[in-house]
Amino acid sequence: MTPQFLHLIREDLERTERLLREHGTGEHPAIAFAVDHLLGSGGKRLRPALVFLSAHLCGADLERATFAAAGVEMLHTATLVHDDLIDGSLMRRGVETLNARWSPAATVLTGDFLFARAAYLVAQTESVRLVRRFAETLMVICNGEIHQMFDGRGTVPTFQEYERRIYAKTASMIALSAEAGAILAGADEEVIVALRTYGEQLGLAFQVVDDVLDFVADERTLGKPVGSDLRQGLVTLPVMLFLEENGDHPALRRILSQGPTNEAVRETVQAIVASGAIERSLQVARNYVREAKKALDGFPSSEYRAALLDLADFVVQRQF
Amino acid sequence: MTPQFLHLIREDLERTERLLREHGTGEHPAIAFAVDHLLGSGGKRLRPALVFLSAHLCGADLERATFAAAGVEMLHTATLVHDDLIDGSLMRRGVETLNARWSPAATVLTGDFLFARAAYLVAQTESVRLVRRFAETLMVICNGEIHQMFDGRGTVPTFQEYERRIYAKTASMIALSAEAGAILAGADEEVIVALRTYGEQLGLAFQVVDDVLDFVADERTLGKPVGSDLRQGLVTLPVMLFLEENGDHPALRRILSQGPTNEAVRETVQAIVASGAIERSLQVARNYVREAKKALDGFPSSEYRAALLDLADFVVQRQF
Repeated sequence: MTPQFLHLIREDLERTERLLREHGTGEHPAIAFAVDHLLGSGGKRLRPALVFLSAHLCGADLERATFAAAGVEMLHTATLVHDDLIDGSLMRRGVETLNARWSPAATVLTGDFLFARAAYLVAQTESVRLVRRFAETLMVICNGEIHQMFDGRGTVPTFQEYERRIYAKTASMIALSAEAGAILAGADEEVIVALRTYGEQLGLAFQVVDDVLDFVADERTLGKPVGSDLRQGLVTLPVMLFLEENGDHPALRRILSQGPTNEAVRETVQAIVASGAIERSLQVARNYVREAKKALDGFPSSEYRAALLDLADFVVQRQF
Repeated sequence: MTPQFLHLIREDLERTERLLREHGTGEHPAIAFAVDHLLGSGGKRLRPALVFLSAHLCGADLERATFAAAGVEMLHTATLVHDDLIDGSLMRRGVETLNARWSPAATVLTGDFLFARAAYLVAQTESVRLVRRFAETLMVICNGEIHQMFDGRGTVPTFQEYERRIYAKTASMIALSAEAGAILAGADEEVIVALRTYGEQLGLAFQVVDDVLDFVADERTLGKPVGSDLRQGLVTLPVMLFLEENGDHPALRRILSQGPTNEAVRETVQAIVASGAIERSLQVARNYVREAKKALDGFPSSEYRAALLDLADFVVQRQF
């Protein structure tokens, strides 16, 4: 992440990084290896950044915010470990996934350990409310994934179903990050809700852009094959919008009815990229960003508020 | 669990059962099915019983204790879901495991959901200290399993290594259950430590008995094949003690060097059952029980203290 406001929270993020990489005594070397490997693969640290911007905006204690920031990043990392295992993904951010190197059993346990460590970090904020929100968020994420697994493959969701899915998958944790600073500051309820709404809308935008990048980014920046979602039978917004005008596209129909082949995915990706579905998807993302920014209307202007507004724009402009 | 003191906490356990089976709105039916299936398979509810006896002994609020009791039982259940997946176990307590019915992916996600729900339940106690202990315990459990997975199969542990393993696997969570009531009551530090020590020693005894039952119980009461540990290359106390006097037992040596065969496991199980290793193992368990009871010396006599003492005896007398 390289937007201009980064200098505001550079030290906070460095402190978080050190905390994330601390190792407990008696911890198996495999865990230390996994943590270093996972954290080293260049995540954007979007969630910690949100925790700190929210913390500064509301005047929360920065030590407690550091525990919260490390906790949400660790939770995010833990969910990725199990996600990659479930999807059988071998690469993420251009780096081998844990399951590409390890047995499923070792991968499951390492993910569990990271969940526990995430919970431990969040508990160190001493905020019961934040811990509860943390647990609720993990329930939402898992429930969403279970929905996707049992009901979601190869079917075309309604817009509402799609939104619910990307809320569970991404926006819920980004909302948690954005409200965390306000919760730790003991801010008024409407302040907490405003930051939560900002995070929710930002998170929805973020996931729509992710779904777009799965079609338009090049494989090297993406760090994984283009069209991965479609290959897994997952119908995202660009596909949904493309279908509205090309309901009888033969290759896509074949993917939906008989499952993906390399040839059909390549053909469909090309057709979608050449269609208006990409721009229309980005328009949806921009609408979410507008809502995100609107949620900050009530805050007096400050460099932290400005940073949150910039961050929202950054999310739809990013190329990776 | 049918010891006499059960009437003291019958209502508490019933309340816990109802709480455990509550379903959230929007929760996928698969989760509800899994929870009912897992909780219905007749666990002993040892951990909730300990939470309540400790809560009554120290005068904790029973509503908060109910959240703690449900939380530790849910955590226990979650770890079993991932354990069974990792071990490829198809039966537990005579009931099909989740992974026997579902894909690994669905099993992983369901376990994750149960972790989250466990954390949520514990957060509802409003005790940051308990949440922290909860997270620490899950870290200990996962770390122990990772040790066992990377280093533990087919090797004969020292007694200290064995003790560390069964502490991580079982005693850590039983210790958490036993101290939970004291923590919620805001009891003095030495009271918390005493109950924690009681739980730790009780948990060690419990796991030794479990390891013994894996040899001597019949398959129907056990709900899984006899000699399961050995079949998985896991060397437990009865095997360790048997080896001290029968270091050159051919079938056992074959299992340790080349892996288990049905024939070698059957032969070894018979030899161990016929040896003094079982009684010596139970002696180790009884020593732990003595230490557990000793930890309660400082408490004035009460029906709850008496119940905890009874429970300790029950643990080594149980047949299942």
